[in-house]
Amino acid sequence: MERVKTRFISFEGSEGCGKTTQIRLLKKRLENRGEKVVVVREPGTTKLGERLRKILKHPSFSLSPLAELFLFEASRVELIKQVIEPGMAENSWILADRFTDSTLVYQGIVRGIPLKIIEQLNALASSGIKPSLTILLDIPYQCSQLRIKKRDGSKTTTDRLQDEFENSLKQIRQAYLDLAKREPQRFYLIEGTSSPQTISARIWEKVKNVFEL
Amino acid sequence: MERVKTRFISFEGSEGCGKTTQIRLLKKRLENRGEKVVVVREPGTTKLGERLRKILKHPSFSLSPLAELFLFEASRVELIKQVIEPGMAENSWILADRFTDSTLVYQGIVRGIPLKIIEQLNALASSGIKPSLTILLDIPYQCSQLRIKKRDGSKTTTDRLQDEFENSLKQIRQAYLDLAKREPQRFYLIEGTSSPQTISARIWEKVKNVFEL
Repeated sequence: MERVKTRFISFEGSEGCGKTTQIRLLKKRLENRGEKVVVVREPGTTKLGERLRKILKHPSFSLSPLAELFLFEASRVELIKQVIEPGMAENSWILADRFTDSTLVYQGIVRGIPLKIIEQLNALASSGIKPSLTILLDIPYQCSQLRIKKRDGSKTTTDRLQDEFENSLKQIRQAYLDLAKREPQRFYLIEGTSSPQTISARIWEKVKNVFEL
Repeated sequence: MERVKTRFISFEGSEGCGKTTQIRLLKKRLENRGEKVVVVREPGTTKLGERLRKILKHPSFSLSPLAELFLFEASRVELIKQVIEPGMAENSWILADRFTDSTLVYQGIVRGIPLKIIEQLNALASSGIKPSLTILLDIPYQCSQLRIKKRDGSKTTTDRLQDEFENSLKQIRQAYLDLAKREPQRFYLIEGTSSPQTISARIWEKVKNVFEL
């Protein structure tokens, strides 16, 4: 017998891959069917999370990888306790802009912290809660570069994490593809270069299929 | 053959036990002998540490125990990398106002996080660096209560950690005594109710003895 699926979907991929847009579009589709939807982002969402997000992104904090990891996990603990668990309890859909896979890719593969340690801390911080479905928006790293540049043109502040990871976009993309191969049941890989409407339609088909809507 | 002693001394005990005063007095004695001394406190000292200290103590953040633990460990990582390791490299004495034992007592015994998890994260965050000597200033919990109240009279801000742990002073004292029993080689237990001068003289004797000054 299959265990009951939690209505928890995470969105993953490099910076600029279109996660935010797709989360917004999926949210609308679900709400049009009368569903309750909670959108979260990591790091962030809770009071502690948003405060840590500022610290993590601020260029004046040049944190060591392990300190960075601990801050991400602290943010995750509060997100689970304050938002995700209560949301699940009232049968809301949880749409997450990044979750534990991001930690494996960025702090593990790129920063070099052993994946075993990260998996252990991820499990501890998330009380073992996992998304039933993970949408991986895959784009060539050159596109990611281009979209970051375009976005940065309209921004006044700098983002330490984005700056530091910009030279690792190729490695990040490959790390995500490797994760998706390891868990094909949970991951749904989509080419992020199609039009937002096309991508949204494909995600919607997948969601209806996985959750039997 | 005994391994070389690192010149790292931590001070532990309940709030109000006199750690700050004793650290100041020991620092003076060492400096009078021409030694270099670095004083650190947890959480704190580094830019990240002091920022996290504010978050941890602020009453508006009602953090779950695990989030609290991760923040303490993040602060510790930066303290080790930015201050303790460089200090040791230039042969300075490190005097620490709280270190890993505090985490075992407060987040472990009082908050109830399994000690095994805390020991593991402590080791990870501190890169295995341990004090050669830990001064435990032991005072009856009623004295701790009294000193906190006295101190609070002159303060305008509240301290979430202090407030939440105030009802556990008896348990905290006992937890420290248990730790000291487990590692009698490292711990030096002193009655914190004697006069600051008497205590300081006894600490100095112990330090001279342990480090063969």
